[in-house]
Amino acid sequence: MTIKTGNLGASLPSLAFVVVTVLVSPYAAFAGGDVAASLLPRPASAISGEGSLPITGSFAVDVSACRDDRVALAAARLPGRVARWTGLRVLPDRSRPALVIRCGAAPAPVQQAVEDESYVLFVAAAGARIEAPSPYGALRGIETFLQLIEQAPGGFAVAGARVEDRPRFPWRGLLIDTGRHFMPVDAIERVLDGMAVVKMNVLHWHLTEDQGFRVESGRYPRLHGMGSDGEFYPQQQLREVVAYARVRGIRVVPEFDMPGHTGAWLVGHPELAAAPGPYALERRWGIFDPVLDPTRDEVFRVLGRFLGEMASIFPDPCMHIGGDEVNGVQWDASPAIAEFKRRHGLATNEALQSYFNGRLQKILAKHGKAMVGWDEILQQNLPADAIIQSWRGAESLTAAAKAGHRTILSSGYYLDHLKPASYHYAVDPLAGAAGELPDVERARILGGEACMWSEYYSAEMIDGRVWPRAAAIAERLWSPADVTDVGDLYRRLELTSSWLEWEGLRHRSNPAMMLRRLAGGDHTHALTAFAALLEPLGIAGRAPARDYTSLVPLNRLVDALPPESEAARSFTAQVDAFLADPERQAGRVEIARRLEAWTRLAAGLDPLIARSPLLAEAQPVATDLSAAADLALRALGNGAGLALSAEEKALMERLATDRAEVSIAVAPALARLITGTAGSSAEAAP
Amino acid sequence: MTIKTGNLGASLPSLAFVVVTVLVSPYAAFAGGDVAASLLPRPASAISGEGSLPITGSFAVDVSACRDDRVALAAARLPGRVARWTGLRVLPDRSRPALVIRCGAAPAPVQQAVEDESYVLFVAAAGARIEAPSPYGALRGIETFLQLIEQAPGGFAVAGARVEDRPRFPWRGLLIDTGRHFMPVDAIERVLDGMAVVKMNVLHWHLTEDQGFRVESGRYPRLHGMGSDGEFYPQQQLREVVAYARVRGIRVVPEFDMPGHTGAWLVGHPELAAAPGPYALERRWGIFDPVLDPTRDEVFRVLGRFLGEMASIFPDPCMHIGGDEVNGVQWDASPAIAEFKRRHGLATNEALQSYFNGRLQKILAKHGKAMVGWDEILQQNLPADAIIQSWRGAESLTAAAKAGHRTILSSGYYLDHLKPASYHYAVDPLAGAAGELPDVERARILGGEACMWSEYYSAEMIDGRVWPRAAAIAERLWSPADVTDVGDLYRRLELTSSWLEWEGLRHRSNPAMMLRRLAGGDHTHALTAFAALLEPLGIAGRAPARDYTSLVPLNRLVDALPPESEAARSFTAQVDAFLADPERQAGRVEIARRLEAWTRLAAGLDPLIARSPLLAEAQPVATDLSAAADLALRALGNGAGLALSAEEKALMERLATDRAEVSIAVAPALARLITGTAGSSAEAAP
Repeated sequence: MTIKTGNLGASLPSLAFVVVTVLVSPYAAFAGGDVAASLLPRPASAISGEGSLPITGSFAVDVSACRDDRVALAAARLPGRVARWTGLRVLPDRSRPALVIRCGAAPAPVQQAVEDESYVLFVAAAGARIEAPSPYGALRGIETFLQLIEQAPGGFAVAGARVEDRPRFPWRGLLIDTGRHFMPVDAIERVLDGMAVVKMNVLHWHLTEDQGFRVESGRYPRLHGMGSDGEFYPQQQLREVVAYARVRGIRVVPEFDMPGHTGAWLVGHPELAAAPGPYALERRWGIFDPVLDPTRDEVFRVLGRFLGEMASIFPDPCMHIGGDEVNGVQWDASPAIAEFKRRHGLATNEALQSYFNGRLQKILAKHGKAMVGWDEILQQNLPADAIIQSWRGAESLTAAAKAGHRTILSSGYYLDHLKPASYHYAVDPLAGAAGELPDVERARILGGEACMWSEYYSAEMIDGRVWPRAAAIAERLWSPADVTDVGDLYRRLELTSSWLEWEGLRHRSNPAMMLRRLAGGDHTHALTAFAALLEPLGIAGRAPARDYTSLVPLNRLVDALPPESEAARSFTAQVDAFLADPERQAGRVEIARRLEAWTRLAAGLDPLIARSPLLAEAQPVATDLSAAADLALRALGNGAGLALSAEEKALMERLATDRAEVSIAVAPALARLITGTAGSSAEAAP
Repeated sequence: MTIKTGNLGASLPSLAFVVVTVLVSPYAAFAGGDVAASLLPRPASAISGEGSLPITGSFAVDVSACRDDRVALAAARLPGRVARWTGLRVLPDRSRPALVIRCGAAPAPVQQAVEDESYVLFVAAAGARIEAPSPYGALRGIETFLQLIEQAPGGFAVAGARVEDRPRFPWRGLLIDTGRHFMPVDAIERVLDGMAVVKMNVLHWHLTEDQGFRVESGRYPRLHGMGSDGEFYPQQQLREVVAYARVRGIRVVPEFDMPGHTGAWLVGHPELAAAPGPYALERRWGIFDPVLDPTRDEVFRVLGRFLGEMASIFPDPCMHIGGDEVNGVQWDASPAIAEFKRRHGLATNEALQSYFNGRLQKILAKHGKAMVGWDEILQQNLPADAIIQSWRGAESLTAAAKAGHRTILSSGYYLDHLKPASYHYAVDPLAGAAGELPDVERARILGGEACMWSEYYSAEMIDGRVWPRAAAIAERLWSPADVTDVGDLYRRLELTSSWLEWEGLRHRSNPAMMLRRLAGGDHTHALTAFAALLEPLGIAGRAPARDYTSLVPLNRLVDALPPESEAARSFTAQVDAFLADPERQAGRVEIARRLEAWTRLAAGLDPLIARSPLLAEAQPVATDLSAAADLALRALGNGAGLALSAEEKALMERLATDRAEVSIAVAPALARLITGTAGSSAEAAP
């Protein structure tokens, strides 16, 4: 049986392989014959083969035909990972390796922006083999192999298969903002572990912001010393992260955002600013006035030395200089800067920033770095090798490609908006105008980056805010364009979530811990059941909700909720099926059972709320939810919609209104049930 | 309001303090006026005071009046711990410390077996103060302070209080067996984190066994090189653990079990054995023949060098030499040993072991170490400073004290039996004959040690197997003897469990992860609900269940279950109340609701079991449980017991029978409900 999920463009080394057109493996039967059914991202192509390879406690890898230290380390880690994914006690028997890896050498000592990441994975009863032209492909193939391990009668196994795979886009990134909230190095390493599983390959590390300067500078110790509240990465840690990423085939592109978003630089070095200091660390969120002064050579001398220092730590061919959200207030207020602009024929602040970028680019070029910047830097005179990160809209992606720049998409990939995975999944870098570009221009679209800005998450929340949603973007950037089945995505996101858990990520355990903390350490049965029906608001909903600063603790209900409610997704599907049934019988019993439980939620929460003032804001939400469940039960009994009293109408309005910075994720489906209005499940999506 | 939970023997430095006899703090009201209500272990005495101290994001500690590096480090860690326990973002404002710590100097550079661990904690609205004669008391006081932080309207706070506290026993230990299953160093450090929270102070580290020799020896590298499957602690890690424990006020007593349980030594050094080799690593569990040869000087030369090497790594005044379970088979089979015994007038193997211990003791004395051993070593000629660990029964505790030895109790504290916390809680070192001893002898009873032998747990299970049950033993050994309320214990174990979670322990998250792994990474709602009603069998039930070896994976349902079912405890209480009600109405609705859900468990599990062969063994258990819930619902409707058919009687028998190495924890209560027999909840305890 052949499953082709897309076209494999490149021709890969051909392996002797018999295509089996009937199912012979009992394990393939588990997946309905779709050998890629458990994979995320889905591969370019996969066909099932004969037999299956047992995965036992003697599991070992032979990597002698792949002379690359990264693959060797990945192979050395693999038995331990197999042990965690299966619970087997693995004592490798190297005399009988279950997996053999062969690879070509890396073309350059440092991973480049475009590398061959293709591989072929061949699995048969006698053993598995990964063949890849480069070490990068071998690393990706190892992740595929691991994802294929499944329970089988008598133990674990990988069903016979041939997977031919390569990414659709070479740049599959994730931005982590450690400027606004500091993330300790173990949190960053967990992010990298997760990225490796879903074959993402660029950590875009946002390291400086108005609220914090997070890198240790030997040349300018006041930068981190005065600009970080003591929360910064010593250089040793920066190198550790780079090394940790490198052996996983992940590049680290550091971002030093400038000339705006530089408030934290100026606390220790006010002389770099366009207006006199003193400066204090910014505690609020937003766009602020402090900005570097691009008119003085001394500023570039400091930047040159600092960026040189950073270039020696971050070996990546790219360095990100930000360039976003310069509001121009300080520049406009300075007579000296006005005079400079006049003298140099710089009519606008955009032109002044373009001048700034031009000098910056010379510094980067000296260190062999290509400049990456947000789409604001896309101006005339921008050197051709600059890479544009498109965030304000996909138009700039096309414009950059047309202007000769390499470019990556982030518009539509902002994870901090807390939109559902399905939303991001639908965003394709080559959709619309970009897809119509001539080949040479379209080839400049390198891929995309998920962005996780950190106004509203702290280190204990990072796993749950990033995962598993980032995996949807990872698949969009790796898999063939026609892999778009949302239901199938969510099924595999659940698996991915488990893999990440086995890798040590805390996207499931930390939210549960935070709920228990809200409950003062006590039992949380009622709170857990309640929380499962809610979703947290993203940045747009939170900013206006209270006077947020970087010091406001993120320890409330909204912070403990996963971004997407699985209960709401399944309930919505049940309700839609019920309403679509002319007899109004489909799933009636199951729906009633859920509603009955919800009618008791508010009462169940009362004792917890009495002890935990932090939960008080949840009480009206719970009360309305329980009341609505009661109404819905009546409607269910009716078999038709209810005629609502004024009071009940008011309840329905409150139900649809965000409170306590959370939304009731089951509210749209409840409303449809109560009014008896069949609708699409799309209405339920936030 | 004064709460005295015991007598405070020592007089502590008196602090100016006003005893307030009415509740003035709104926070104290949360705990019903019992200021120690959230503490575990409960302190010697606690009285509530005026006002309350806000715990804010500027929380800081002043430790200038406690010149000890351990307390300084604990104080430095405290703001981060407060952040994790509350979710506050803590940037300490050292100009206004909320907590001031004063302490006396440690009497000796290395923590001794008996130290003054007393402290007074004084909390008022303006600040908190810990005063302690020694750094050890200061460390304990910090834990108490942390446990007192609670949610209050407007933020977090510690209610005004004065806690005067000291331990009942100086030796409060926990044995971790890393010989049978290796535990990586991070698992050991999590154990130490948990111990510190509940004021335990001795890590008894079982480092060598028939199945593994876990310490790196520079002198004899074949010991760990051939005796560990590569799973051993490099010396740097041993020192790291010692340092990690030291700064938490925890001693590390290493155990090198000999002359029996030495199979792993002999793989690389068969010449030490009483019978010719070769030897292989033991994979089975049990008592085996390999034993050191105590008749040859060369054996003691090797032991002398090896123990000298270990003495330089482990600074503790005690070293544990095991001494248990010598079966004498090899000794009896050797003509040379028989001749040696004759020549030295050693009539029995016990006498020969006594001779062995005598020579061992001289080695330890040379390194300034007191010998600790299992109660088998309690024989004539044992040097007076040897410490006896009583495990085969409490009689040896009394016998040892009478014979002049210091002694610690482990009989009744074997956590690997997976008995409920209440069982261990009821075991008091001074119960029975020990309590009747003359003062001078009773004073030799130093305390006790929980033992966690590792036949049936791996590194991912250690947190859940140890915690929170070990906390019950910690309280028994710290708190006054009259602190015995089991209901109150379980309430506080739930809190303790949360504290440990906030400290990073995985006793809650790893079992959940293991359940998801059982389900192949898929949703586990049904499995979670089912698992909550089960309890795993302890070592006695598992050993006969299958042909266990150290290579058998611990990845089944039994391994994923917490030792105690909270659902069973609460259901049993509900059923008892119902049956005790002459009207048979009490809690009827709630009981019916639970039973109804249970009737659907088996069907809910079916799809999971179909995909996960590892779960197949659970199917008959679930089927019977659902059927019994159905019967119980009928009985509940009846208001009286049912007359059971033969088939139903067979079901009830199966329900009470352990299968798949688990017991149905709700079975006794279900049975009482079905038969209508009022009984005591004690019947429900395994």
